[in-house]
Amino acid sequence: MLHPHRLFPADPSTRAIASRLYAGVKDLPILSPHGHTEASWFAEDKPFPDPATLLIQPDHYVFRMLYSQGIPLEHLGIGEHPIANPRGVWHLFAKHYYLFRGTPTRLWLNYCFRELFGLTVPLSQETADMYYDAIQEKLAKPEFRPRALFERFGVEVLATTNSPLDPLTHHLALRKSGWPGKVIPTFRPDSVVDPDFDGFKQNVERLGASTGEDTSRWSGYKTALRATRERFRGLGCTATDHGHPTPATADLDVESASKLFDRILSGSSTIADRELFRAQMLTEMALMSLDDGLVMQIHPGSLRNHNETIYRRFGRDMGADIPTQTDYVHNLQPLLRRVGNEPELTIILFTLDESAYGRELAPMAGHYPCLKLGLPWWFYDSPEGMRRFREYTTETAGFYNTVGFNDDTRAFLSIPGRHDVARRVDCAFLARLVAEHQMEEDEAHEVALDLTYRLAKAAYKL
Amino acid sequence: MLHPHRLFPADPSTRAIASRLYAGVKDLPILSPHGHTEASWFAEDKPFPDPATLLIQPDHYVFRMLYSQGIPLEHLGIGEHPIANPRGVWHLFAKHYYLFRGTPTRLWLNYCFRELFGLTVPLSQETADMYYDAIQEKLAKPEFRPRALFERFGVEVLATTNSPLDPLTHHLALRKSGWPGKVIPTFRPDSVVDPDFDGFKQNVERLGASTGEDTSRWSGYKTALRATRERFRGLGCTATDHGHPTPATADLDVESASKLFDRILSGSSTIADRELFRAQMLTEMALMSLDDGLVMQIHPGSLRNHNETIYRRFGRDMGADIPTQTDYVHNLQPLLRRVGNEPELTIILFTLDESAYGRELAPMAGHYPCLKLGLPWWFYDSPEGMRRFREYTTETAGFYNTVGFNDDTRAFLSIPGRHDVARRVDCAFLARLVAEHQMEEDEAHEVALDLTYRLAKAAYKL
Amino acid sequence: MLHPHRLFPADPSTRAIASRLYAGVKDLPILSPHGHTEASWFAEDKPFPDPATLLIQPDHYVFRMLYSQGIPLEHLGIGEHPIANPRGVWHLFAKHYYLFRGTPTRLWLNYCFRELFGLTVPLSQETADMYYDAIQEKLAKPEFRPRALFERFGVEVLATTNSPLDPLTHHLALRKSGWPGKVIPTFRPDSVVDPDFDGFKQNVERLGASTGEDTSRWSGYKTALRATRERFRGLGCTATDHGHPTPATADLDVESASKLFDRILSGSSTIADRELFRAQMLTEMALMSLDDGLVMQIHPGSLRNHNETIYRRFGRDMGADIPTQTDYVHNLQPLLRRVGNEPELTIILFTLDESAYGRELAPMAGHYPCLKLGLPWWFYDSPEGMRRFREYTTETAGFYNTVGFNDDTRAFLSIPGRHDVARRVDCAFLARLVAEHQMEEDEAHEVALDLTYRLAKAAYKL
Repeated sequence: MLHPHRLFPADPSTRAIASRLYAGVKDLPILSPHGHTEASWFAEDKPFPDPATLLIQPDHYVFRMLYSQGIPLEHLGIGEHPIANPRGVWHLFAKHYYLFRGTPTRLWLNYCFRELFGLTVPLSQETADMYYDAIQEKLAKPEFRPRALFERFGVEVLATTNSPLDPLTHHLALRKSGWPGKVIPTFRPDSVVDPDFDGFKQNVERLGASTGEDTSRWSGYKTALRATRERFRGLGCTATDHGHPTPATADLDVESASKLFDRILSGSSTIADRELFRAQMLTEMALMSLDDGLVMQIHPGSLRNHNETIYRRFGRDMGADIPTQTDYVHNLQPLLRRVGNEPELTIILFTLDESAYGRELAPMAGHYPCLKLGLPWWFYDSPEGMRRFREYTTETAGFYNTVGFNDDTRAFLSIPGRHDVARRVDCAFLARLVAEHQMEEDEAHEVALDLTYRLAKAAYKL
Repeated sequence: MLHPHRLFPADPSTRAIASRLYAGVKDLPILSPHGHTEASWFAEDKPFPDPATLLIQPDHYVFRMLYSQGIPLEHLGIGEHPIANPRGVWHLFAKHYYLFRGTPTRLWLNYCFRELFGLTVPLSQETADMYYDAIQEKLAKPEFRPRALFERFGVEVLATTNSPLDPLTHHLALRKSGWPGKVIPTFRPDSVVDPDFDGFKQNVERLGASTGEDTSRWSGYKTALRATRERFRGLGCTATDHGHPTPATADLDVESASKLFDRILSGSSTIADRELFRAQMLTEMALMSLDDGLVMQIHPGSLRNHNETIYRRFGRDMGADIPTQTDYVHNLQPLLRRVGNEPELTIILFTLDESAYGRELAPMAGHYPCLKLGLPWWFYDSPEGMRRFREYTTETAGFYNTVGFNDDTRAFLSIPGRHDVARRVDCAFLARLVAEHQMEEDEAHEVALDLTYRLAKAAYKL
Repeated sequence: MLHPHRLFPADPSTRAIASRLYAGVKDLPILSPHGHTEASWFAEDKPFPDPATLLIQPDHYVFRMLYSQGIPLEHLGIGEHPIANPRGVWHLFAKHYYLFRGTPTRLWLNYCFRELFGLTVPLSQETADMYYDAIQEKLAKPEFRPRALFERFGVEVLATTNSPLDPLTHHLALRKSGWPGKVIPTFRPDSVVDPDFDGFKQNVERLGASTGEDTSRWSGYKTALRATRERFRGLGCTATDHGHPTPATADLDVESASKLFDRILSGSSTIADRELFRAQMLTEMALMSLDDGLVMQIHPGSLRNHNETIYRRFGRDMGADIPTQTDYVHNLQPLLRRVGNEPELTIILFTLDESAYGRELAPMAGHYPCLKLGLPWWFYDSPEGMRRFREYTTETAGFYNTVGFNDDTRAFLSIPGRHDVARRVDCAFLARLVAEHQMEEDEAHEVALDLTYRLAKAAYKL
């Protein structure tokens, strides 16, 4: 199930190089500077309830595949808290586990089954109960509690993703707990800077209430954002994250921005106003980052909730967000005109449109001092996706305008498996360069260390 | 000319796996659920006339390459029925056969020369006559008649593509003939649902005449389409096919649709009206498919007849259709909003814009129950195209949201060669997954069977 | 540093084939039909001044990477003539040479260090002085003067790129010098056909002055262009080159074109007018090429001077030109409608949008007699870029609708290294086709010769 040479090229000489490179990085600590785990898990350190609640319900990669083959989400316990029949859900999953052949989801699930739960036979309808019982039994043990796993995984830093309205109670509790695990928040302001976000206006009011600022005016709104960033920084936050539908940016003068903000709050805004406001806010965030040093991450290009029926029935993040064509060149120009030449600023760009890797992102990151390339994201957090990322970006942007892997996951147990895949794929890529005499092996060892550890540590200021 | 290991990776261990996988699928029956052969060939079972008429004249892949190098289409017998000087055309083709190096056309031509005609020296100016005579001699024999070849090729089902105005005389004749070969029609309504199709208005009138419905009104038009689908179904049809310039869809209310139809028929429609009408008709077709069970195929994104000089002189399908950028995410949303969550509906999406594979198509097919991914089409029906398809779609959509190979060909003799290439490339892809320990070999055997036979049989209801 | 098997696939059987193919082409003369070296270098034959002025200052590939990592351009001597502290610039470069790992820039620099300057240790901070001194010493020797290097490199033809306003003094001098090296100009009229070019109006006036035509009128303007093309042809020019922001083309009648020209010159033109004028001028150039036989090259899709701060401070060509999405299908149609079926015309298309290779460019070049595909350009002049070009275009356009490598370089010393990379990558691609039994090895040898020498010679009429 887990061959030591998995994901290495079959050619024996290349495989040998990849193995040697991997040996040098496989035991390095895990930096997880961008993800969606919950601080409460580590603050409360309660056992995970059951296999279905742990591995199926929170992971849209898993249930979207099952849904695509005609299995209703209701049968998978989606929307149930707790799942009424977790063993039934697990059976359904096990019966259809063959659907995941060739997918990265199976890679990390197998890693987790084998490395964490010691299961050595394949998951199938026949072994479903055996799996369920074995995992359930383990989850009850102290060494499977969140903190114990965090330590076992060798996580050096884990960043969560948090709304400005989040009181960060669990992060505070963690700080006070004396537990040495480093879990830090990330400032993700979509809910208060995207007028199309559910409850935007109320969110802005709550932002005012939580900071004591008058967020019904442009200046107070910005002050409130600055103050909230400071609150996050106080709990170890080093980065912001922005999930806009497009990478549109703008650079309005204060008066225009202020009037735009008024229109947005008044409810009389047009679609174009709202896009312009998001665009302006990216530039505002970049300016604040210049001041307070928070690293800025931009994740554009997903059309959220494409399936309206599912959205109405189950809400957000149900596997129905679909990538779209994304233009970085024109969209980012206003922001870059303003701050693009600042070497002290770091803006990490992600994409769901791979055609932009070679055409736009690598040429831009290979020029602008503030820009760095985020690693393959979402659907591309996969062996082929990671390989293509290196093939399409390295020649123009080099390795040193990239920032190392992040797992971006809600599935805590997938973290070591995902990082392992990334390390293997990067070593395989470097091994090919060595085998084809484009790089010496000693250099490749150094680059492997950079890609696994040093670049993320530096870019995210960890 | 035909090495047993052709198209398998050179690495010996991977090649050995590929060979074993291929051995398990190479002799499976051929399912050809989408193509452009003629039912009359099998109904009449007459000998094919000569090598040029058989292999050059009907195949735009062949003559477009020659034309691109300055050979006038007139010199290739294009537009002549019969070709005045087929041996001369053959000579011109043989002299320029080197132009096809590295192309899939050469792969299947060589397959056909060797496997069907027993020719073992390469085709060139020197061997042109020898080839011509050998092929001509064979074509006169009973075992080279269409039905004999159909049986020799191991075709289990062959679907033709037919206009709703086609009386399907030859399909009827085949049914009555007692010959067991299964040749079924496909319902391709472009000529009666695309207002920009040559003679659209007359076509709609003829549709009315052939069904006894008043197709000058929206309701009668729809009833006529339903009735024609039933007529096709009665002759074994299991699928529809739609060759629109874009994948635009719409979901108008009855009144708006009816008024739009009136504007279209009145001749006063705008370009936008005509695009909206095509868009609405895709949704109408999907709704009819929900009722009658016909599988829906959408082939968008070709700008037809880009070369107007050639179109005026020679007509359609002359190798001058050029792919364009294609947006599936926004375009398909109206249709998907209406029927996207129906697991009983099957819509197979094809593309000529490979950048959509990973960005749009795999994410959509990996979520919506009704969507499946059609295999590499047209210019991508090739080893590189097939490999890229698997690399770009498998990780997100898996293997089981794809539908197996179809040859989409006018060149009957190319069918076994094309399917052989697809089987080899899929086995090569799977062999890599096995060699890189992402999949066990026993699973890969099962997937190879699925890709070669089971998925097409299930998706097309064959 | 320079392994004989570099850039060949690691699989031993494929590598052996690649080596044999490469042995057949590695010593062929260099055809460089498109580049940015200066005729003055060869006319004057003066020594190159120092390593920094030779290798860093003129090459935006080099300094953009350093700039992207926060090194100010001022520290690199950009904009200084001569560089005040070339040794200091060299040190900065050497210290950051690791940034170029995995880039094509390092491939040719290493080639140059080793093959031209005999340096065998890697460049680093420690070896910076040793490198500087060794190169400086060599540059003073007669065998490192431009003409001697030209001969040593085995250059058969070298084309420069020249404005219509260039008196071609150095080309004239070269003709008279008796030196047998063939250095020819290329007609690049952007400065007099693109209304957005700096000083366009004055340029058009100067074009009039240099030809004695009244370029304030459409007919005189066109006559002046024709006369200038003739002047270029008289000095060996065989090609034109067009660097437009998009591949838009138009085919206006004389009156409309004339009025458009008047609006452009009057300064009252709109953005759309200026784009239309560029579009019209591509068709005018194609028509002139039909008359005078000059091969036409179109290089669209770069958004020039994206970084305005850098542009204001340092001017054009400072590494801040960024590719954009490019539509060839609709844009080229007006031109192709007019001249697309002329087999005597050659139009070579380049792209910075690789998604167009398979979707648009290969299908178009595989049909239109006048179209050929230019090799990977700019950011894609790299091993991965060259490999992808073959993988995406060969199956549809074949090898014979492509035109061989060009180096497009300002860095004269990079020429042999760049051509060597192209030869190796093409041989590696062919070796895979042979190893996978898609092509016989004797054919591959012939194709390797075509790709290295014959296709460029024929397409550019050298």
